[in-house]
Amino acid sequence: MKTSGSKLFLLLPYLVYLVQAALYQPNDTNSKPVKNIGVVLFPSFDVVDVFGSLEPLNLLSLQRQLNLYMIAATLDPISTAPRAMSAFNSSFGEVIVPSHTFDSVVRDPTLDLDMLLVPGGIGTRAPDLNDTIQFVADVFPRLQYLVAPCTGAGIAARAGVLDGRRATTNKRSWNATVALGPKTYWVARARWVRDGHVFTGSGVTAAIDTMFAWIGHVWGEATAADLALGIEYERHTDPSWDPFGEHYGLSDVPPLR
Amino acid sequence: MKTSGSKLFLLLPYLVYLVQAALYQPNDTNSKPVKNIGVVLFPSFDVVDVFGSLEPLNLLSLQRQLNLYMIAATLDPISTAPRAMSAFNSSFGEVIVPSHTFDSVVRDPTLDLDMLLVPGGIGTRAPDLNDTIQFVADVFPRLQYLVAPCTGAGIAARAGVLDGRRATTNKRSWNATVALGPKTYWVARARWVRDGHVFTGSGVTAAIDTMFAWIGHVWGEATAADLALGIEYERHTDPSWDPFGEHYGLSDVPPLR
Repeated sequence: MKTSGSKLFLLLPYLVYLVQAALYQPNDTNSKPVKNIGVVLFPSFDVVDVFGSLEPLNLLSLQRQLNLYMIAATLDPISTAPRAMSAFNSSFGEVIVPSHTFDSVVRDPTLDLDMLLVPGGIGTRAPDLNDTIQFVADVFPRLQYLVAPCTGAGIAARAGVLDGRRATTNKRSWNATVALGPKTYWVARARWVRDGHVFTGSGVTAAIDTMFAWIGHVWGEATAADLALGIEYERHTDPSWDPFGEHYGLSDVPPLR
Repeated sequence: MKTSGSKLFLLLPYLVYLVQAALYQPNDTNSKPVKNIGVVLFPSFDVVDVFGSLEPLNLLSLQRQLNLYMIAATLDPISTAPRAMSAFNSSFGEVIVPSHTFDSVVRDPTLDLDMLLVPGGIGTRAPDLNDTIQFVADVFPRLQYLVAPCTGAGIAARAGVLDGRRATTNKRSWNATVALGPKTYWVARARWVRDGHVFTGSGVTAAIDTMFAWIGHVWGEATAADLALGIEYERHTDPSWDPFGEHYGLSDVPPLR
């Protein structure tokens, strides 16, 4: 009897897992359905942070109601080109048209943004990013979710919304970005980090894995897997997969004591 | 002596490889440097086909002179949203501004487009794609390279520029797309296919691997590897890697006899 009892004890975590799995519901059945997606735009944003993230949502919008808000300081078209062009005299940039201004979203209390995507990019280093940072701070209390891949985590940190949270960011821009969030615990080896309703991602293409993690969290893994199949994408499903943090020899900030 | 001679013979392929490796030059030292990149745009194009492909080129434009031409029927902004919106009443699309028209490029003989990217997307199924197809046919003889990922290969096929070539395309849209190119040999298990100066890719995110294969071909593997590191991207470097062709149980068209 004693042996049998201790064997059952060993099985307990597995039984708890089975019960949890049987009771699992995609997150949005427990709260307001996710419908309105906002994207913060600023000059020289990164295109994969934005469009790599939006690709599966573009597909999903054909299967359920989703509304997109492309939000910037003004409605003027925005270029991805660096504002100071290189010494090589390139003329290389894509131009995107916002649909809403920061002001119009902040002043419209009837607009429920369920998720806000804050991308990174060269433009996060611009000196005049204050309106973008202020918008993220202003709208954050109204959000169900914030998703900030790449150096977009730096914008989120400057808006104060990563204070007291675990987060990650672009591994090549690691030192410069973690310095922007002194009250954040920065995870050095992570493809993405979820802390409550805030998802941050590593650099550039990690935005795609981060978005799939978010989609899986909100609508369930089957939806995420089906969308990944539709875009012929081999996901990284382990958030701790990160050869890039390893490549640069990075450690968590602040270091564990 | 005889043994030593036959051992040397066994080493011959390796010695040939060493000589080849020492003599290797990235392709563009043998021809005009690649500088001017064109992208074909049409309503409801796929955003990863375009922006996943452009991401590494955006970075590369900071290291060497590259010029981008975003080319469409008119200069009117173009939305990625399907023209007939879904039954779910979504309002979901990104809006991009072209920089050049098909006409202006065709009529300017001084404009050397070194590479043209032809993306895919839901919009490739539109009935009125004739101007886009005609543009690809018109400009093809002036190109050094054509890169057509996803269902963009269907546009290239309809323009006749895949006739007599090996190609691949989106695996979920396989049957509909291969029917557009009856004179093309369609490879069913391929992340991408290079046939001379024409690169085609499998679906959506395969565009990223296809673009890196093209970058490696033009500027060398070291450049491709450095750009992939910069965007924290784990490339598929084997063109025959294709779990999606396998998933759908696809075979080459026409079948080998």
